[in-house]
Amino acid sequence: MRLSRYFLPVLKENPAEAQIVSHRYMLRAGMIKQQAAGIYSWLPLGFKVLRRIEQIVHEEQIRAGHIPLLMPTLQPADLWRESGRYDDYGQEMLRIKDRQDREMLYGPTNEEMITDIFRSHVNSYKDLPLTLYHIQWKFRDEMRPRFGVMRGREFLMKDGYNFDLTKEDALHAYNRHLVSYLRTYERMGLQAIPMRADSGPIGGDDTHEFLVLASTGESEVFYDSAVTDIRLGSREIDYDDKAQCQAVMEEFTSLYARTDETHDAALFDAIPEERRKSARGIEVGQIFYFGTKYSEPMGATVVTPDGARVPVHMGSHGIGVSRLLGAIIEASHDDKGIIWPEGVTPFHAGIVNLKQGDAGTDSACEAIYGALKARGLDPLYDDRDERAGAKFATMDLIGLPWRITVGPRGLAANKVELTSRRTGVSEEMSPEAAVARVVEIYAGL
Amino acid sequence: MRLSRYFLPVLKENPAEAQIVSHRYMLRAGMIKQQAAGIYSWLPLGFKVLRRIEQIVHEEQIRAGHIPLLMPTLQPADLWRESGRYDDYGQEMLRIKDRQDREMLYGPTNEEMITDIFRSHVNSYKDLPLTLYHIQWKFRDEMRPRFGVMRGREFLMKDGYNFDLTKEDALHAYNRHLVSYLRTYERMGLQAIPMRADSGPIGGDDTHEFLVLASTGESEVFYDSAVTDIRLGSREIDYDDKAQCQAVMEEFTSLYARTDETHDAALFDAIPEERRKSARGIEVGQIFYFGTKYSEPMGATVVTPDGARVPVHMGSHGIGVSRLLGAIIEASHDDKGIIWPEGVTPFHAGIVNLKQGDAGTDSACEAIYGALKARGLDPLYDDRDERAGAKFATMDLIGLPWRITVGPRGLAANKVELTSRRTGVSEEMSPEAAVARVVEIYAGL
Repeated sequence: MRLSRYFLPVLKENPAEAQIVSHRYMLRAGMIKQQAAGIYSWLPLGFKVLRRIEQIVHEEQIRAGHIPLLMPTLQPADLWRESGRYDDYGQEMLRIKDRQDREMLYGPTNEEMITDIFRSHVNSYKDLPLTLYHIQWKFRDEMRPRFGVMRGREFLMKDGYNFDLTKEDALHAYNRHLVSYLRTYERMGLQAIPMRADSGPIGGDDTHEFLVLASTGESEVFYDSAVTDIRLGSREIDYDDKAQCQAVMEEFTSLYARTDETHDAALFDAIPEERRKSARGIEVGQIFYFGTKYSEPMGATVVTPDGARVPVHMGSHGIGVSRLLGAIIEASHDDKGIIWPEGVTPFHAGIVNLKQGDAGTDSACEAIYGALKARGLDPLYDDRDERAGAKFATMDLIGLPWRITVGPRGLAANKVELTSRRTGVSEEMSPEAAVARVVEIYAGL
Repeated sequence: MRLSRYFLPVLKENPAEAQIVSHRYMLRAGMIKQQAAGIYSWLPLGFKVLRRIEQIVHEEQIRAGHIPLLMPTLQPADLWRESGRYDDYGQEMLRIKDRQDREMLYGPTNEEMITDIFRSHVNSYKDLPLTLYHIQWKFRDEMRPRFGVMRGREFLMKDGYNFDLTKEDALHAYNRHLVSYLRTYERMGLQAIPMRADSGPIGGDDTHEFLVLASTGESEVFYDSAVTDIRLGSREIDYDDKAQCQAVMEEFTSLYARTDETHDAALFDAIPEERRKSARGIEVGQIFYFGTKYSEPMGATVVTPDGARVPVHMGSHGIGVSRLLGAIIEASHDDKGIIWPEGVTPFHAGIVNLKQGDAGTDSACEAIYGALKARGLDPLYDDRDERAGAKFATMDLIGLPWRITVGPRGLAANKVELTSRRTGVSEEMSPEAAVARVVEIYAGL
């Protein structure tokens, strides 16, 4: 994309309404615009990151054997009466009446609807195991929406639901989700620690939240610092292998790590003192096993091998897709702006032309731009007639991980500068070498 | 995907509620499930086609130089008061009150919100031309939702908005949309004819609807049969070339083609009798130029080169993304089921194992399945323990354009059967040749 033809409305001033850094930078970098309290438009740069995150979530869910579908945003109230949650859910549920005065709601989550889909179409244990998920807009009518997309009212969530014949199978689904979530967050450059949590209105006994450590997090968390040394990395996972998924789950959850809701001071004190940490965390996902809580009242049953009919064992599993943009920025920024991890960056590299209009720099920039695109990358070329300082400030603010700077002096020696946004370190090299380096960096992802 | 692990709930019986063929087949092929009147879940097969259509729309909009963003589903009522449409829109607008009693609505279209984004961030003619679009769920509270996704209440639409300094530039944007839409529909295997139409509640003078001829269409259309002979084909388009876009627009719109709303009997009678046709059509898109209808009341102005401040010229342009699934099926089916055009098919080919459990056929099927996947294709392997007849019926119903049938008798002579869903013609060839043929077919798309 050429910046002269893009819509990137960056702000010079810090917006007064933004209390935390991710909200401030998302507004300043022209990523979002508030349309009503807790309701945002995703401007082109924000939308690009949102799509990259969504794509990673899809890929990792499909890799784990989960099947995508899409449920609507609006739901009939009657479905929620079957589970008993219509009256329980409280004011966060946005209730709507249509022109025929039918009671509807804007879905805050989808346990009821997916259970309805299941019971309408599945009848036999032979169709299990089954995990269905979707990525869809949800609405929760928060009393005090704040922190930008971190606590919005209309938000994008991945929610998945497993249907299994036995508790054992359902716990495998739980572990499978835990593993696939670890991989999902790591691909986004995030460390999200699974912590034993409280189940809240979803219900159920087994539940872990995934928390990203950040000083602006809404939750207080307590953990053994050794837990931050574990990575899934590039190990091969066979998602059908129950023992392997179980082992990963145990590896990541046996060290102490809890939110304040489940914190146990006695257990915490048993950790060696130098590893005893408390901090703040941002919740970016949660997994639940809740057995037959929905399948029983809603009649989601299957026939077993010996002809009996039993309610299925279920769980639900969510990733806060839109919220992740805020969480990533909270975890990765400096005082000049955002620092996108390569896995989610809106553009793979920025090209800064130090002397727009100069035939030599223009054609060198065009060549680099063309070469990156030809290799399947998505560069942003700042081809505006602006001062170098303004161009650098924009690139730093929007946080592209790599910048190629092209000026007449360097070109005289066949050199451009490749700069890492994260370290600030620049290296001089030929334009071809810079392209090759950027291609190599992304080939590994 | 292996069918044994997929969620494809096909129905044997014709659902009583479905009056038209696309609705019937989408239900029977397990593509959708109704959740409330005019509100559907997109089951895995339906969701896959929806995503393919969405992807084509994105690619062609980006190719035309249009920039994607995403506006929320809910909008504040006050924005619609500025344009005067809040009171005008009538009962099709779903009005909502949140917990603070603020008036909101579920967006039926986005002229107001995009104009708000524009006026908040753009100030100079230097930032024009600009076309922004999104693909987002909309809601129109139809009195009588029917025909499945063809006239649903919650539906997915691509809507784009151009902002230009002059009427001339805005008409170029209009032509650019017309051309990009022609390419979009052709890639989906559809002929959609631009017809002079009525502007309705959007407003404006210049507008064309794109209609797919089908006996179940809701509109009566009148046209010169010569118009159905024109194709955009693979010609190169430079979307910055005003004259070229104008020429394509004239080529496609100078022959008589109108909906009943703008039909002119005298002009129609001037067509040679043998080319005078009337038929029914399904609207799958519409483009509008409406000048300053929104920019003036909402204050979306820019500073001109000579320092004056003028309202921008705008247009809006929509494609009915979810409705397209219905339109494609209406245009492409037979009495056994759907016939997907290659451009939008949910799976590129089906593999039918005639003797599941036989080591030879199983391993031949696995090899074909693996080879197609290795070439970047997405096959559906029917690995269920079912009769051949049932497997064929499912494949015919869900409409994959190519089927590879693998049985022990053929394999003895190193042969499998490659069958075209459209023509029904089967050819015997080696498994390798069948894979190569399927790869070749999709390489051209």
